[in-house]
Amino acid sequence: MFDVAELGSKVSKAEFEAAAPGLRVDLLNAQFDLAGAPFSVLVVLLGDDLHGVDAVLDRLHEWMDARYIDTHVLLEAEDDADRPPFWRFWRALPPRGRVGLYVGGWPLDALSRCLGSDPADEAGFARDLDHHERFEAALAADGTLLLKFWIHLPEKEHKKRLKRRAKRKLQLEDADWEVTRRYEDVTRLGEKLIQRTSTSRAPWLVIEGTDDRHRDLTAARAVRDAIRGRLEDGGETQATSTVSVASAPDALSQVDLASELPRDEYKQRRDAAQEALFQLAIRARETRRSPVLVFEGWDAAGKGGCIRRITQALHVRDYRVVPIAAPTDEELARHYLWRFWRQLPFPGRLILFDRSWYGRVLVERVEGFAREDEWRRAYDEINDFEQQLADAGMPVIKFWLHLDPDEQLRRFREREATAYKKYKITEEDYRNRDRWDEYVLAVNEMVARTSTLSAPWTLVPANDKRFARVQVLETVCERLKEAMDS
Amino acid sequence: MFDVAELGSKVSKAEFEAAAPGLRVDLLNAQFDLAGAPFSVLVVLLGDDLHGVDAVLDRLHEWMDARYIDTHVLLEAEDDADRPPFWRFWRALPPRGRVGLYVGGWPLDALSRCLGSDPADEAGFARDLDHHERFEAALAADGTLLLKFWIHLPEKEHKKRLKRRAKRKLQLEDADWEVTRRYEDVTRLGEKLIQRTSTSRAPWLVIEGTDDRHRDLTAARAVRDAIRGRLEDGGETQATSTVSVASAPDALSQVDLASELPRDEYKQRRDAAQEALFQLAIRARETRRSPVLVFEGWDAAGKGGCIRRITQALHVRDYRVVPIAAPTDEELARHYLWRFWRQLPFPGRLILFDRSWYGRVLVERVEGFAREDEWRRAYDEINDFEQQLADAGMPVIKFWLHLDPDEQLRRFREREATAYKKYKITEEDYRNRDRWDEYVLAVNEMVARTSTLSAPWTLVPANDKRFARVQVLETVCERLKEAMDS
Repeated sequence: MFDVAELGSKVSKAEFEAAAPGLRVDLLNAQFDLAGAPFSVLVVLLGDDLHGVDAVLDRLHEWMDARYIDTHVLLEAEDDADRPPFWRFWRALPPRGRVGLYVGGWPLDALSRCLGSDPADEAGFARDLDHHERFEAALAADGTLLLKFWIHLPEKEHKKRLKRRAKRKLQLEDADWEVTRRYEDVTRLGEKLIQRTSTSRAPWLVIEGTDDRHRDLTAARAVRDAIRGRLEDGGETQATSTVSVASAPDALSQVDLASELPRDEYKQRRDAAQEALFQLAIRARETRRSPVLVFEGWDAAGKGGCIRRITQALHVRDYRVVPIAAPTDEELARHYLWRFWRQLPFPGRLILFDRSWYGRVLVERVEGFAREDEWRRAYDEINDFEQQLADAGMPVIKFWLHLDPDEQLRRFREREATAYKKYKITEEDYRNRDRWDEYVLAVNEMVARTSTLSAPWTLVPANDKRFARVQVLETVCERLKEAMDS
Repeated sequence: MFDVAELGSKVSKAEFEAAAPGLRVDLLNAQFDLAGAPFSVLVVLLGDDLHGVDAVLDRLHEWMDARYIDTHVLLEAEDDADRPPFWRFWRALPPRGRVGLYVGGWPLDALSRCLGSDPADEAGFARDLDHHERFEAALAADGTLLLKFWIHLPEKEHKKRLKRRAKRKLQLEDADWEVTRRYEDVTRLGEKLIQRTSTSRAPWLVIEGTDDRHRDLTAARAVRDAIRGRLEDGGETQATSTVSVASAPDALSQVDLASELPRDEYKQRRDAAQEALFQLAIRARETRRSPVLVFEGWDAAGKGGCIRRITQALHVRDYRVVPIAAPTDEELARHYLWRFWRQLPFPGRLILFDRSWYGRVLVERVEGFAREDEWRRAYDEINDFEQQLADAGMPVIKFWLHLDPDEQLRRFREREATAYKKYKITEEDYRNRDRWDEYVLAVNEMVARTSTLSAPWTLVPANDKRFARVQVLETVCERLKEAMDS
């Protein structure tokens, strides 16, 4: 496949100098128009020609307005080695209206892992590519314009250049020799990577690096044409085909809301579970695992109370509570999962989300804040996200606190009668009650679509607060024990 | 001094239950009003009573609206051990309108370092406290309401509780035994810490932990009263007394703008410096140092060109360029230095700032975006910031690119005649020229106030681009060599 990039294409100096000024104007204009458009551009630079990659990066910085480019060098993992592999790629995403340049990135991750294993772990390589596809699909669906460039040098040219550089003692490091020594492996795997992951939403462009001018013009034109093309499409995100599902089973109706716990039994089981939890959290710290607890439920179902029964049991160093409120402008400018990825804690700590990414398929769905294609694809995106967490030693434990509308109303009234709880009840809470049935549908579909083996939902009867709290505490202990013993 | 917190103060159950509901309402109202106020609240929790600290934290979460509290457990450094010590305290700052709770924080840092050295490094302790004072002064001047709580238990009570907990196998870890074993050291140093760092802008409150109810009420009331008090002051930042300085020497007039470099000499010196720089960057990576390069200068003075001559010489993994444009809302909601602290790179990489924190004393001063007391105190804040970077293996290298107004005008015109440079010239650039003299004053004062031994300014004659580029390259090499050899 690299044959097409071994044609020895050349651009004369005169041709280059004739083309460059116009191209620079085009690029700057494209960047200017992009600033007001509802999508971001992400260019991934990679290749067997390491110096070519550097040079293209420099060129794009020179020809575009570097002040509006977010460049990230994402080679091997560094301080982020303990997090899920995609954490650093998520974290670095450019906001809408800007260009991001990733050197290396997720394609390099897969290559390096495969090259680093002996024999090459091609099954792992295929698995990695599946993750890539899902990541790219999520970005593309969110409107990100994705481009991937592979800078290629024919083998002969490679050797020639290395020798020349070595003679001049110029910019040479082990990595350069490594690519040359394993040239065949690198290009064979590179070819496989490109074939497997070149999609219309994230196409690869193989660029021959033999001639500098040809290389730079080709890369810069590709960036210009892609931005310009998308701008002319109106920058609209294509709605992905929505899977239509048979209506989800009514899981909520199966919850036994009559469940209760007498005070004595409550105290005894709560204390036992809290003590067990305390010890489990220390084990989590020592084994650097970070369980992720998600709390969702009806208004006034008692999420805060459950969370406090957990945190009370723990040393402050062993947990972190993340309440989810309105997103900031930095968060609004990116894929909706970005704000959750950025919260992932230092390993070895429980993280408790008071509301979560499920807002996408609950309030945003019901209130119409997200389009149907947006919340529909969220199920898969969420499953992939949670799978990545679980794979990285962050078991996901999810609770829906369920109560009936009468009990909710009783609690609203009670809160209104208690001075320090009054603030918790607003007009909106009453309005939400009008949409009870729509929320029931949304919850049922959420449970059906996102209760997975590695991250199952626990539906908690919460008409009785004592019962709910103990069930939450005991479930957390159970799941932690399982995770720790596995 | 802890005597005052060994009085055995108690609050009866009845008294507590009578006071709590009103206090909760007050706290929630204070928090609500704070949301619209122009300052943040930062409460630091620390003490010899570790469980008391946990309990106060839990109580504040219960009584306030935990969704609007940013809690950070800042015990010993973890993934952040390579950065300047204050990086993690800066990074976690709450935005205006919110409450931050730090468990441990910078006071704990100083205590731990001193307790960890044998014999106790009291000189180092005093040095640490100086840094604290500057940090607190910067926050206070920015309007942050700072409270520090020390939860204290008399020694007898300590031992009694530990034994009781041990018997019940409850929540006990090495840290608990450690405090008891070294009780005398901890309280002696704690007392010193409190005496030295209790200021009107960041007062300590010592709270006796013997009685839970007394402890919680005291802490919660202190939070309420402090927020309420500040709100009633109008939430205004007090202008700190401004140092009036004799006019700064006219350093700019000393720059020899006639400096030139012929093309041949330029090429030769540029190539030599670039090659040296490449090697130095590898050494920086290997020794995990992160030089910080700052580029300031007149419009059209050639900052971008200088930066590119540096990055061209480096492997992409060895540098990161941070262009400084308009702040985001997350950035605007915090101290102006926050956005620079958050950019500090993974150790072992050059970081190049295209414009920087000096905007505060340049454009923000001249255009009136910052009040006089704000930009006046910025000199000291910046010096302290850069000193901290230098101490953490991040030598700061600063350039002001100087040219004369005629040359600037010539370049503006030239840019307007070049299609792909046109975009760089706006109305604003011409407007800035009208304030040339004011900028000269600001630059001269900036140089006089912030050219320090560890972070001196280099004023670069930039009428001739070749001369400027070579001077920048060679200065960077020189400074890096010095830093690496020291």
